[in-house]
Amino acid sequence: MKFELHSTDSRTNARAGVITTDHGQIPTPIFMPVGTAGSVKAVHQRELENDIDAKIILGNTYHLYLRPGLDILEKAGGLHRFNGWNRPILTDSGGYQVYSLAANRKIASEGVVFKSHIDGSTHHFSAESVMDIQRTIGADIIMAFDECTPYPCEYSYAKSSMELTHQWLTRCVKRINETEPKYGYSQALFPIVQGSTYKDLRIASANFIAEQDQQGNAIGGLSVGEPHEEMYEMTGVVCGILPKDKPRYLMGVGTPENILECIALGVDMFDCVMPTRNARNGMLFTTQGIINIRNEKWREDLSPIDPALGGYVSTFYSKAYLRHLVINKEILGAQIATIHNLTFYLWLVRSARERILAGDFREWKERMVKIVSQRL
Amino acid sequence: MKFELHSTDSRTNARAGVITTDHGQIPTPIFMPVGTAGSVKAVHQRELENDIDAKIILGNTYHLYLRPGLDILEKAGGLHRFNGWNRPILTDSGGYQVYSLAANRKIASEGVVFKSHIDGSTHHFSAESVMDIQRTIGADIIMAFDECTPYPCEYSYAKSSMELTHQWLTRCVKRINETEPKYGYSQALFPIVQGSTYKDLRIASANFIAEQDQQGNAIGGLSVGEPHEEMYEMTGVVCGILPKDKPRYLMGVGTPENILECIALGVDMFDCVMPTRNARNGMLFTTQGIINIRNEKWREDLSPIDPALGGYVSTFYSKAYLRHLVINKEILGAQIATIHNLTFYLWLVRSARERILAGDFREWKERMVKIVSQRL
Repeated sequence: MKFELHSTDSRTNARAGVITTDHGQIPTPIFMPVGTAGSVKAVHQRELENDIDAKIILGNTYHLYLRPGLDILEKAGGLHRFNGWNRPILTDSGGYQVYSLAANRKIASEGVVFKSHIDGSTHHFSAESVMDIQRTIGADIIMAFDECTPYPCEYSYAKSSMELTHQWLTRCVKRINETEPKYGYSQALFPIVQGSTYKDLRIASANFIAEQDQQGNAIGGLSVGEPHEEMYEMTGVVCGILPKDKPRYLMGVGTPENILECIALGVDMFDCVMPTRNARNGMLFTTQGIINIRNEKWREDLSPIDPALGGYVSTFYSKAYLRHLVINKEILGAQIATIHNLTFYLWLVRSARERILAGDFREWKERMVKIVSQRL
Repeated sequence: MKFELHSTDSRTNARAGVITTDHGQIPTPIFMPVGTAGSVKAVHQRELENDIDAKIILGNTYHLYLRPGLDILEKAGGLHRFNGWNRPILTDSGGYQVYSLAANRKIASEGVVFKSHIDGSTHHFSAESVMDIQRTIGADIIMAFDECTPYPCEYSYAKSSMELTHQWLTRCVKRINETEPKYGYSQALFPIVQGSTYKDLRIASANFIAEQDQQGNAIGGLSVGEPHEEMYEMTGVVCGILPKDKPRYLMGVGTPENILECIALGVDMFDCVMPTRNARNGMLFTTQGIINIRNEKWREDLSPIDPALGGYVSTFYSKAYLRHLVINKEILGAQIATIHNLTFYLWLVRSARERILAGDFREWKERMVKIVSQRL
């Protein structure tokens, strides 16, 4: 993996770059659609490529490990071969889902024992096993095994959890160094900064993570319920420490506004279930603002969903038709809304990149934040 | 609407023809995907056109009348404009859904009073109102308002129900003749033969329907639970009476085997929820036979779904991946299986047409019936 910085904004910390992986290039800033169990919900692989033009997608280690299972993924030659997505894939470490979905989880320094949310079977994740699992899934970018603290979080817990995450990281790095990629292409490890909303912990963690000198770095434990101002403050502090020549990935963020603000703070990569999950409930992010398509006001609106955005679904289908589909729980409603929202998110980061390169990112961002967060 | 008969098979009663409507041509025999509430579930309109190559789809009057409602459909300029499907649409009369879905339905000679299955509101369908509704939906082919008898059905009930259907038909024809199409293109009325599984009633009904001299004719009240042999017998009797120069539509049929057998009896048009509904449960119709993709035997089968069928979904995605999606209730599983099944159904009727024109339909049909009905 290689990262080239093409431009840094002079009036914010926004950056435009390109990550090169063995599965292709990723212009940054970038948004990564979430493909939990090997599918970005309601979207065909060709639509992800041709309509949305996603450059990289995310897979969830916890889900993929349970289903379809590592034996099938290995037999297929990795997730790319299994699901037919030939551009880069990043997998999370599985930790977050173990904490949020699995039952009876027990965290110890060795790792985590948990019961599957599907069938109650017992499993064990450790720093080492999670590296091996991600090698087998075949991720281009492997995330370190971490503990993601909830919000609010006591200082003492945040500190000891951060220390555990750092210990695990040392073991993750060792394991990655001792093992080889399984399918002939390289797999980069990204460590994760933790430390909850405590500035001193975030500084300590960012320094520890920076010292690992891995190919990219991530910021975890944010967007878990804290006020946006705290998220921005922590992100700003951490971005000030993480090396400039490595991509920075802010995990699980966020709204279009969050993404624009965090690009300005120096973040290069984002992922979030919001555009996909909210789409299935009828919430649309558009170039004019946010639409709840279930509202009565769209019932007779025969205009296209978002003509300014362009693309098949946003210009072909009307708001009234999409509302009808969503109200009737038609699968096509989820399909249209998901493609639309992801197309919008990819447009947003692509536009941000163009503005950074053009040198007028700050003005555009200030104007755009107002537009994309208004409710229509 | 115009119907040209291109060829009649010399050893069966199979026919190859073309129906011409103001929204384009329909080669026959044809299968019509069901788009209940204005959407063929899990399929984009461009996929229906480009992947499946559907020539005509079906809409359900009962559903469309309740939602989105006639005001929106009229404002849009009809269903074609509302959902963006520019090829022909056939609508049923709403009768079947009133009997099967609505609550507290009361059938009288005037019409049917029923309560919506959505909100319990009271509505009234009559021969006249159902013609007006279908005019407003903008169907290219309008179905007469009928009563569909259940199976089994007492002779006396079947007879009086058939007589009611005939009375209603007279009123439907009158209403259609007194009114104009709403959107500038022509709308044909198809009367429906009833009579349950009683040969004398079917003969009487077919003669009555033939006398109406409408642009096409339908056979209703079959595929409601009777043995296939009874369905084939009634279909054969009715096809022997209905005029040769008009298309014949067998409503709600059926399995690939049913379709092939009924093509041999002289049927030109089919519709059924089977390829779409069963797809969502993981049942696939393929060129090699029937697959329950949920079965363990497909778990590690990384071969394409149906390479012989061709097309994006059937060749791009593997059986193992589709199984994984269906087991996990991923929306993409329903999307892939639906496109696959409909592509197969359209391939089946297209192939039948080619064989009728080539003169070897019977041999092909005998061979194909065995293949498409075997369980893999």
